[in-house]
Amino acid sequence: MPHALADKIAADMQAASFIREMFEKGRRLMAEHGPENVYDLSLGNPNATPPDAFFDALRAVAADRQPARHRYMPNAGFDDARAAVAAFVAREYRVDLGPDGVILTSGAAGGMNCVLRAICNPGDEVIVLAPYFPEYRFYIEQAGGRMVLVQTDAEFQPDLDALAAALTDRTRAVLINTPNNPSGAVYTAERCAGLAAVLARHDRPDRPLYLVCDDPYRRILYGLDWCPTPVHDYPRTVIVSSYSKDLSIPGERAGYIVVPPAVPERAQLLGALTMLNRTLGYVNAPALIQRVLARCADALCDVAVYRTNRDLLCSALCEYGYALTTPRGALYAFPQTPIPDDVAFTEILLQHRVLVVPGRGFGRPGHVRIAFCVERATILGALPAFKAALAECRGA
Amino acid sequence: MPHALADKIAADMQAASFIREMFEKGRRLMAEHGPENVYDLSLGNPNATPPDAFFDALRAVAADRQPARHRYMPNAGFDDARAAVAAFVAREYRVDLGPDGVILTSGAAGGMNCVLRAICNPGDEVIVLAPYFPEYRFYIEQAGGRMVLVQTDAEFQPDLDALAAALTDRTRAVLINTPNNPSGAVYTAERCAGLAAVLARHDRPDRPLYLVCDDPYRRILYGLDWCPTPVHDYPRTVIVSSYSKDLSIPGERAGYIVVPPAVPERAQLLGALTMLNRTLGYVNAPALIQRVLARCADALCDVAVYRTNRDLLCSALCEYGYALTTPRGALYAFPQTPIPDDVAFTEILLQHRVLVVPGRGFGRPGHVRIAFCVERATILGALPAFKAALAECRGA
Repeated sequence: MPHALADKIAADMQAASFIREMFEKGRRLMAEHGPENVYDLSLGNPNATPPDAFFDALRAVAADRQPARHRYMPNAGFDDARAAVAAFVAREYRVDLGPDGVILTSGAAGGMNCVLRAICNPGDEVIVLAPYFPEYRFYIEQAGGRMVLVQTDAEFQPDLDALAAALTDRTRAVLINTPNNPSGAVYTAERCAGLAAVLARHDRPDRPLYLVCDDPYRRILYGLDWCPTPVHDYPRTVIVSSYSKDLSIPGERAGYIVVPPAVPERAQLLGALTMLNRTLGYVNAPALIQRVLARCADALCDVAVYRTNRDLLCSALCEYGYALTTPRGALYAFPQTPIPDDVAFTEILLQHRVLVVPGRGFGRPGHVRIAFCVERATILGALPAFKAALAECRGA
Repeated sequence: MPHALADKIAADMQAASFIREMFEKGRRLMAEHGPENVYDLSLGNPNATPPDAFFDALRAVAADRQPARHRYMPNAGFDDARAAVAAFVAREYRVDLGPDGVILTSGAAGGMNCVLRAICNPGDEVIVLAPYFPEYRFYIEQAGGRMVLVQTDAEFQPDLDALAAALTDRTRAVLINTPNNPSGAVYTAERCAGLAAVLARHDRPDRPLYLVCDDPYRRILYGLDWCPTPVHDYPRTVIVSSYSKDLSIPGERAGYIVVPPAVPERAQLLGALTMLNRTLGYVNAPALIQRVLARCADALCDVAVYRTNRDLLCSALCEYGYALTTPRGALYAFPQTPIPDDVAFTEILLQHRVLVVPGRGFGRPGHVRIAFCVERATILGALPAFKAALAECRGA
């Protein structure tokens, strides 16, 4: 280990080196063939245009030169911004919620770190359903916890028996993400209710078990009116989310935590989360974006753009012969790879100048994640490569 | 311990309860006497008006409806914003610095957490000079480190012998803050050079010792043209700072880390800090404020407002008979209390409807911190109370 860095950080850097290597290869390809001839489907960077309501709100906020609007406010956020977000959440989730149940955070990432830190004693287990967003491991370990992976079924729906079998006396939380990154699965209402029932059987006052819903893709849906949620069925549920996808503004760090009224010891938890927002160094969600949210907390970007991309990509992949569970939400397709080694398949695609992420990075080998939040031309340009790579694997 | 929260968090909440109690008392006083008759000098919330350059930049940024400007950018920040901040830092510190040496962060708080996490192995010691900003303890402990306090001298200048005596094989970093919160001390050039020499004698390649300068008050100076710094004298120095005070925008979370070219293993450290900005959940400094900084990275609020407040407060305190080292920078006066028990003295001031913070919260009992970043009327209203409280203590 180098002495200049903490051992754990040096190890994390080392573990991430294969991703960096892939990006390096991609960059070399772009230099060699021109960026327009390399098709990067590796990044989850929402590319829809933010809605007019966002730009209008931003302009109004920028025109207001009151100096006090850029100062520290209470760590949970400006009152009007919390009220606007609470009103939106109450409608969206069909729950009873006032401003006091909402803490504005530095993105969902900041919110998730506050929640995990608030509840995890050293060595506590946090169950994550795989495939999963790989940043969770950092968040859980930073909170002193230990990530325990439980695989979902073949269609990426929660496997309730596997979940029940994984719960122990050290399980402090179950973390779910629906619509899911990377699989695009939307957990069914039936499976949500089943999951709630499994948790309810395990929860005890002396050993409380939290359900943490990471919901930033909740409104990015295809062919569904409403995203099912276990929040009504399991009282000790905390929601973490953001406006990164709704408004297509992930760079602005506009996140929030919701602690619904049904959560036991709610005031204690809200107090701890507010303190942690400060002590973990986030301090508060950025003042500017809070003031924008106060004006457009229910706005939504044009999801139809993503839907067209999804249809284009998924119908082609299926036609070529890929085994794919068509995503019902979020911004990714997660097909099986035609050969078991997903890293090797990623390398084959790279030779065809297409960048995707191997499934093992998400805890599910034998798949690749294809982000369709890109220019349409990028998808169209990549399709022949997917066809050719599959043929190559079959020919081999 | 309640079961709903992690033990450490519940304990931190408990430890903070006396501060909350004081605020509650203040709130009751405001309800009883009217807010205009309660003089709150407890909060370090910069109240200068942001400079015109800031408001102009914000309006220009808000008028630009390019959708891509709100998306994820590299975790270290937009290129143009990093370049603007680097150019400012190079001039301000008189160092050679390019954009690659700057990482934009979620406030100085976010930057400090990245730095400490990058370098601290579990149990490593971080020396903090007291009096000190109490959030440091959270940041250090979150990074797995242990805070070691070393008192400054009677005028709040570094005590070099005490510092040398506190260095051990486990010391990973020394954290300094000049101009200082809460004392207002500006470390002299001579003392900065002496501090650098002490650290240089201890630093070894197999046991590197970082100097971390927390510099958000650097340009808030009274009667000084330039704030001395040890950065030129000690190579392994990392600067953490923000625009919270310069632009009077602490709610916007506009911070940065500087790793000067002289730092050994610089590329490794910059890589780790960039990764940590992401994995600790900050992800990036808010996109909007980055774009504003790209246009006004060297702007400064009107420091004369603070200076007038300082003069008004400090000359009155001295006239009444308080023992006070007049602050040369930052936003606080830190007089000795006329009785040794600073919490008891805070209570006496509270009876006179004045709110300040006891020195023991900053690691220096027998003092109180008085924030002068408030409306002038608040200072004027509080002065008779300071006079009366002193007389009371002397009469007793």
